[in-house]
Amino acid sequence: MIRPLGDRVVVKQVPSEEVTKSGIVLPDTAKEKPQQGEVVAVGSGRLLDSGQRVAIDLKVGDKILFSKYSGNEVKIDDVEYLILREMDILGIIV
Amino acid sequence: MIRPLGDRVVVKQVPSEEVTKSGIVLPDTAKEKPQQGEVVAVGSGRLLDSGQRVAIDLKVGDKILFSKYSGNEVKIDDVEYLILREMDILGIIV
Amino acid sequence: MIRPLGDRVVVKQVPSEEVTKSGIVLPDTAKEKPQQGEVVAVGSGRLLDSGQRVAIDLKVGDKILFSKYSGNEVKIDDVEYLILREMDILGIIV
Amino acid sequence: MIRPLGDRVVVKQVPSEEVTKSGIVLPDTAKEKPQQGEVVAVGSGRLLDSGQRVAIDLKVGDKILFSKYSGNEVKIDDVEYLILREMDILGIIV
Amino acid sequence: MIRPLGDRVVVKQVPSEEVTKSGIVLPDTAKEKPQQGEVVAVGSGRLLDSGQRVAIDLKVGDKILFSKYSGNEVKIDDVEYLILREMDILGIIV
Amino acid sequence: MIRPLGDRVVVKQVPSEEVTKSGIVLPDTAKEKPQQGEVVAVGSGRLLDSGQRVAIDLKVGDKILFSKYSGNEVKIDDVEYLILREMDILGIIV
Amino acid sequence: MIRPLGDRVVVKQVPSEEVTKSGIVLPDTAKEKPQQGEVVAVGSGRLLDSGQRVAIDLKVGDKILFSKYSGNEVKIDDVEYLILREMDILGIIV
Repeated sequence: MIRPLGDRVVVKQVPSEEVTKSGIVLPDTAKEKPQQGEVVAVGSGRLLDSGQRVAIDLKVGDKILFSKYSGNEVKIDDVEYLILREMDILGIIV
Repeated sequence: MIRPLGDRVVVKQVPSEEVTKSGIVLPDTAKEKPQQGEVVAVGSGRLLDSGQRVAIDLKVGDKILFSKYSGNEVKIDDVEYLILREMDILGIIV
Repeated sequence: MIRPLGDRVVVKQVPSEEVTKSGIVLPDTAKEKPQQGEVVAVGSGRLLDSGQRVAIDLKVGDKILFSKYSGNEVKIDDVEYLILREMDILGIIV
Repeated sequence: MIRPLGDRVVVKQVPSEEVTKSGIVLPDTAKEKPQQGEVVAVGSGRLLDSGQRVAIDLKVGDKILFSKYSGNEVKIDDVEYLILREMDILGIIV
Repeated sequence: MIRPLGDRVVVKQVPSEEVTKSGIVLPDTAKEKPQQGEVVAVGSGRLLDSGQRVAIDLKVGDKILFSKYSGNEVKIDDVEYLILREMDILGIIV
Repeated sequence: MIRPLGDRVVVKQVPSEEVTKSGIVLPDTAKEKPQQGEVVAVGSGRLLDSGQRVAIDLKVGDKILFSKYSGNEVKIDDVEYLILREMDILGIIV
Repeated sequence: MIRPLGDRVVVKQVPSEEVTKSGIVLPDTAKEKPQQGEVVAVGSGRLLDSGQRVAIDLKVGDKILFSKYSGNEVKIDDVEYLILREMDILGIIV
């Protein structure tokens, strides 16, 4: 497993053509479309200039939307993951 | 539904050719034209370097103007939404 | 009407070929020429990293000069307005 | 008259081919050459992130040198002025 | 040996075609793929604007993933190392 | 004479082909070569975001090295000067 | 001699084809290769926005690695030196 550093999270990507249980389907237009994923690991949070560490507003299991083209891919035990920064995550599907 | 992170809001876009009840019509000139929408979800706010979280100056139901070409599109139960940052929102129609 | 957010103001533009009562005429040279307008609404002010909100140094009715090509146009009840950031406003005609 | 905002000053430009009483002549080389002017109005000063307003280190009547290509031109009662930021002003001729 | 300065670490690179004991294999896609390495030296940490020095969240022996194309190569006693900044390190393989 | 503003200094340039008494000759290679000069006036110093003014670490008469292509030229009583920012000054010849 | 300003150091460069006593040889690959040098003078340190001056984490005599293409060359008494910023120095050979 990977422990992400700082403001990073590890995300298991859900293919964008897949329809989730909550019924979200991504539209097919010219605008940038977000991608879906599930959080599998969360870093210790962003460090402010004041020296304060701010916990990431996400927990393992959260279903998220994130910006396409963001993050770094990695494969662990034949499963593909993405390492994303908190700022690349748009919202949580609730 | 989507819970937006940080300084983001979820907005239901109003097509720009549509005339709203308040009578705003967008002009047809060379300058960048704002788009209209209605706020459906509001994030926890922007985090300052001091560690202070600043609530977004918007609430669900606000009719807003935002910069064209900003935000990420997402479709939920066949309705299109935009996830915008607070800084992309110009003002509230009151 | 529009309530501008943060450091933004709503301005009723005065066409640049028009001569105002204070006698200001904009020159016809190669340099960037400012535009004139009248403030019709003022946001709550810029938020500093310290968390302090700083009131905009303008009030409704102020005649202002602002940088050309700045701001977003919007038409309300057939009147054209601009939504500008405080930083795009050069000065007040007094 | 114009009251400049923030860290801006209004300057009456002195044509660069003119020789001032203090005997400064601008050289004719490839490097960027400063321009001369006289301060006619001074803004309230730059606002620091700490919330402190810092008075501009200039007063009306100061003869200044400023970077070419900086500022915005404006004509008042047939006299041309420039609205400059304090950072574009190199020094005071004393 | 090298003592890295500030927020830098010295890393012994593991060739990306090599499969580690933890079973991580890097995928062969278009996205940027992270590289693997082992930390051999850690700097004193990043200096915040507040004057606080923040220890690097890594220790000698950590197996890490880092962004491709980051860092500076150096060879010591015929072994190749990379000098990376903490921000280029994505996570720790645990 | 010129009183430089803020973090600026006025420098009397020494032609780079000239050999100074301290025996420094500038090499003729591809890398950027510094220029020599003598400080003739010093500004009040850089203003930090905390509101503190930091005196420039230079005094009138200092022989300095500065980055080529930096600063603004000005001629006073037929002598050429440069107005430089403190950050463009590499060191003092002692 | 040169007294470097702020966060700068003066370094006597060691040609990169030379093998030092500590046995470091620089590899011949496509990645950016660091250069070696010896510190001969150290500035007073970087000034933080808080007004605190932070001593450079280097002393005269330190053998260092620094990024290629960084710094300014200068020749003193026929010896070539480089003036580098602390941020361009990767580590100390110990």
